[in-house]
Amino acid sequence: MAWLRKPIRGVLMDITGVLYESGERKAIEGSTEAIKMLRAADIPFRFITNETQKTREQLDSLLHRLGFDIYEKEIFMCVPAAKKFIHDLSYRPFLLVHPNVESEFYECDQSQPNCVVMGDAASNFTYENLNQAFHVLIENNDSVLICLGKGKYYREHSELVMDVGPFAAALEFAAERQAIVIGKPGEEFFRLALDDLKLRADEVVMVGDDIVGDVGGAQSVGMRGVLVRTGKYRSSDENHPSVKPDGIVRNLKEAVERIVAMERPYKPVFPQ
Amino acid sequence: MAWLRKPIRGVLMDITGVLYESGERKAIEGSTEAIKMLRAADIPFRFITNETQKTREQLDSLLHRLGFDIYEKEIFMCVPAAKKFIHDLSYRPFLLVHPNVESEFYECDQSQPNCVVMGDAASNFTYENLNQAFHVLIENNDSVLICLGKGKYYREHSELVMDVGPFAAALEFAAERQAIVIGKPGEEFFRLALDDLKLRADEVVMVGDDIVGDVGGAQSVGMRGVLVRTGKYRSSDENHPSVKPDGIVRNLKEAVERIVAMERPYKPVFPQ
Repeated sequence: MAWLRKPIRGVLMDITGVLYESGERKAIEGSTEAIKMLRAADIPFRFITNETQKTREQLDSLLHRLGFDIYEKEIFMCVPAAKKFIHDLSYRPFLLVHPNVESEFYECDQSQPNCVVMGDAASNFTYENLNQAFHVLIENNDSVLICLGKGKYYREHSELVMDVGPFAAALEFAAERQAIVIGKPGEEFFRLALDDLKLRADEVVMVGDDIVGDVGGAQSVGMRGVLVRTGKYRSSDENHPSVKPDGIVRNLKEAVERIVAMERPYKPVFPQ
Repeated sequence: MAWLRKPIRGVLMDITGVLYESGERKAIEGSTEAIKMLRAADIPFRFITNETQKTREQLDSLLHRLGFDIYEKEIFMCVPAAKKFIHDLSYRPFLLVHPNVESEFYECDQSQPNCVVMGDAASNFTYENLNQAFHVLIENNDSVLICLGKGKYYREHSELVMDVGPFAAALEFAAERQAIVIGKPGEEFFRLALDDLKLRADEVVMVGDDIVGDVGGAQSVGMRGVLVRTGKYRSSDENHPSVKPDGIVRNLKEAVERIVAMERPYKPVFPQ
């Protein structure tokens, strides 16, 4: 339990596969209680997700329906970060995203596109749409490929399905261009959430079900990375060739119970 | 014209983009004459193609309709080579190929698949089919991914469309497995055609429109590789970062005119 040897002052968490199983309409056992425990113990936390099939508002209301006591501003997502990136560099996007989030890009100029923005488009990943994205890249050497996360797969309705990463790899291969990744495991994205917590990386633990995107990504910015055995977790993740989790727990509840049980450094309480 | 400095005793040619433009119903200017010239000059040749949307029979009859005087046995294709590979190693394939060639695999046992065979499936590259192929790979660590060629794209109806390569790259990324490539630029595939010509690699010139698959592939087995400015050719191919063609010509006709015009080593003719 090496991850419990140093103080933990804040927690980052993935959402899908940690709070609830993708495609299912109920919370993972113990996860609503886990959030209550963190709040009761006054341990700050944020959610950090590559979810790009839902807007932040949709995700927030889904989590409330599932019984989670959270605030919309605690959720960090790729789309707002990507919109800022596109806006700052004056890119005009061709969108290959889920229909649910297309509307979030309405204010971007989408004429004569000079970049491709790919999210987890799911059944929008058709041969035709992928070829259109390919054309945007190949017809202009300066076009860029922006990828909202680079996950390999996730679990939905008890089946593993491919995430955005494989489709990004397809376009990278076809157009001979590296994708710019906005999302986990990109460092920039973790730093946004850390800044909001006002904590240093070595004070924070990231809890996730993705050995590379969550655990490896968190470790690469100096956080501890804890793997849960829910969501897309597979037993082979425990012997991953390059990423070694700082801790492995049954689920979020076990992680939080251990964090809350830790002796916390004295925090002065001033009289009101 | 470095490629003309050494004798040329045989010619290999790509088909699509060299004999005719993909999606169009007519021969590229001068290409039917070029084949006649080679035959008249008694210079042996073979066709070597990653075409996996047609059977050899279909391709042969298409070429005849377009006015080419060729024999079916002169055409080397991936599917028969892949079938032999699958049979020799007792693999049971899940097919992600064009409907036109599915029937060629009828005799293979396709129950409980332990390999994926991918060709240029075009609109069969749906999210659902790709996920099915992904499952075959991820559910069994010994499953293999067999890829009929690894082309990036080709030209069809004057538009570039993605070939099998990008979709193979997607599955390689998702399932963390290298594809076994049966087709150009794989060495084994070129050697099949060279063996049939009964010539050494350094006696043969490969003519193609794919800078990597045709030109680079041929060079890697010791042939000279000549690029035509037809088919999927793009001007940037002339400054490719890693592949330098031995020659660049307008089209197949120009390549053949130059080959036929070469002084050929004396070939003794015995009286009948």
